[in-house]
Amino acid sequence: MSPGGFSCRHLTIVGLGLMGGSMALALRGVADTITGVDPDEATRRYAVEHFIVDQATDDLKEGVKDADVVILAAPVRVILGMIERRIGSYLRSNTLLVDIGSTKEDICDAMGRLPIGIQAVACHPMTGKERSGITASDATLYRGRPFVLCSTRRTTPAARLRALELVETLQAVPFEMDAVRHDRLVAAISHLPYLLSSALVATVAKEGESDATVWELAAGGFRDMSRLAGSDVEMMGDILSTNTQAVATLLALFRVQLALLEAKLISRDDKEVTEFLRPAREARLDWYRGYESKAK
Amino acid sequence: MSPGGFSCRHLTIVGLGLMGGSMALALRGVADTITGVDPDEATRRYAVEHFIVDQATDDLKEGVKDADVVILAAPVRVILGMIERRIGSYLRSNTLLVDIGSTKEDICDAMGRLPIGIQAVACHPMTGKERSGITASDATLYRGRPFVLCSTRRTTPAARLRALELVETLQAVPFEMDAVRHDRLVAAISHLPYLLSSALVATVAKEGESDATVWELAAGGFRDMSRLAGSDVEMMGDILSTNTQAVATLLALFRVQLALLEAKLISRDDKEVTEFLRPAREARLDWYRGYESKAK
Repeated sequence: MSPGGFSCRHLTIVGLGLMGGSMALALRGVADTITGVDPDEATRRYAVEHFIVDQATDDLKEGVKDADVVILAAPVRVILGMIERRIGSYLRSNTLLVDIGSTKEDICDAMGRLPIGIQAVACHPMTGKERSGITASDATLYRGRPFVLCSTRRTTPAARLRALELVETLQAVPFEMDAVRHDRLVAAISHLPYLLSSALVATVAKEGESDATVWELAAGGFRDMSRLAGSDVEMMGDILSTNTQAVATLLALFRVQLALLEAKLISRDDKEVTEFLRPAREARLDWYRGYESKAK
Repeated sequence: MSPGGFSCRHLTIVGLGLMGGSMALALRGVADTITGVDPDEATRRYAVEHFIVDQATDDLKEGVKDADVVILAAPVRVILGMIERRIGSYLRSNTLLVDIGSTKEDICDAMGRLPIGIQAVACHPMTGKERSGITASDATLYRGRPFVLCSTRRTTPAARLRALELVETLQAVPFEMDAVRHDRLVAAISHLPYLLSSALVATVAKEGESDATVWELAAGGFRDMSRLAGSDVEMMGDILSTNTQAVATLLALFRVQLALLEAKLISRDDKEVTEFLRPAREARLDWYRGYESKAK
């Protein structure tokens, strides 16, 4: 018996990247059989040869038709395409359908239009790694990390409990909330930071056009602040395009804070400057203490 | 003989923090004697007991009067105060005076008004550590890291060469440039990133006032983007207050980049969004490859 009490007969994971592969590894002991669906042949071969899944196919219909639990681990718009166009007719009634896409409002809407009888829960695990792809799969990827669950019009009480058991089996920390709230929160802590990182690198690149030494002097501060700018552009474009409104809101709120800080700086009022910086510092240190202790 | 050929009879380091302590450790073998000057008694005691310096005093005049090389390793405005008010009359003629403050224009100006006969070079090593203070001192702190040198009106050709030898002995990488250029480059790669980090944390803190769960979902992206906001507020306030103009310029340039990106996002033109993000990603990856290979 797994820690969360979750078990299933036939688990199908659609999308064998880092997230899907790690999900398969983490659920190895609680599913009688695991099928992987992925368009890439090398990925499928790797997943089977490394016993991450029992069998793999590039055919969505074939992959999901016998499953009692299906996890969609793909970019948001790919997930949307599957939900809107095809998967509803392939699934057996009563199948638990879980997605782990990075934004939730559009997916929850789409799930709400699935055939009655499908049990759908929209999820977002807050975890990741520098490396991506099936070869980076890690059975402990979800352990101790937040795992957001959003109910949809196709979430029965039983489906909700089963999804919670799944999260517990992954040893992740469940957070139940509605999709709009999720999308705003991730805009604040994930999408806004990414945009700032990219705009910072673009600014330094502009400076670099007239003085390339800027790159040679850049050190640890710039390294950390530019890391997100190195993220996969297609993946981030997919995420941003499905969360434009919340991202625009957070950008507007950020501009207010930056303008406040700038006004204090330009007016050369040192006391006002530190009065802005100090609570930000304390908030960061407080948060980091909690974050670090959970990471252990 | 040291790698850089630098040697001195009596080295005095003013300010026994991480930077000064590490300087003392790195120059241990090339100075006949090292004096430390620091107002904090526990710091002085630690530095002497751990053989970081040979003797320590809280009296600037006493500490520098016999030195042939003096390194000022203190906050910018403390350095400015020493140069403008006192140290010129304490130093022997021909003493090499080097500062390692984080901004250079004000310090170069002040050094240019020192008594003729003092050899002054304004420097800024681009290095650091999470931990600060004498107890974090590390003989290898400067190794392989950029070390900016700015000539002043009190930099003779001999002083310049001696400072370059000092940098070589530290196994750092010398970059000679004027102070205005230095201050603009560090505004781009250090001060702007700090302000963005602080304004980001302030934005998330505002969100946290209405929905505290934002802190619980924050993960690795936020961790990296918020690290600089945890910097010492007094230290950063000191730096920003002596580089306001360059920082304001870089903030304006950053706003242009962020507004460009936002316009593309809001207009929902995915291609335009990725066309902004892709060169930023490539610039970051290119830079990081070089940075990492140098760090090894």
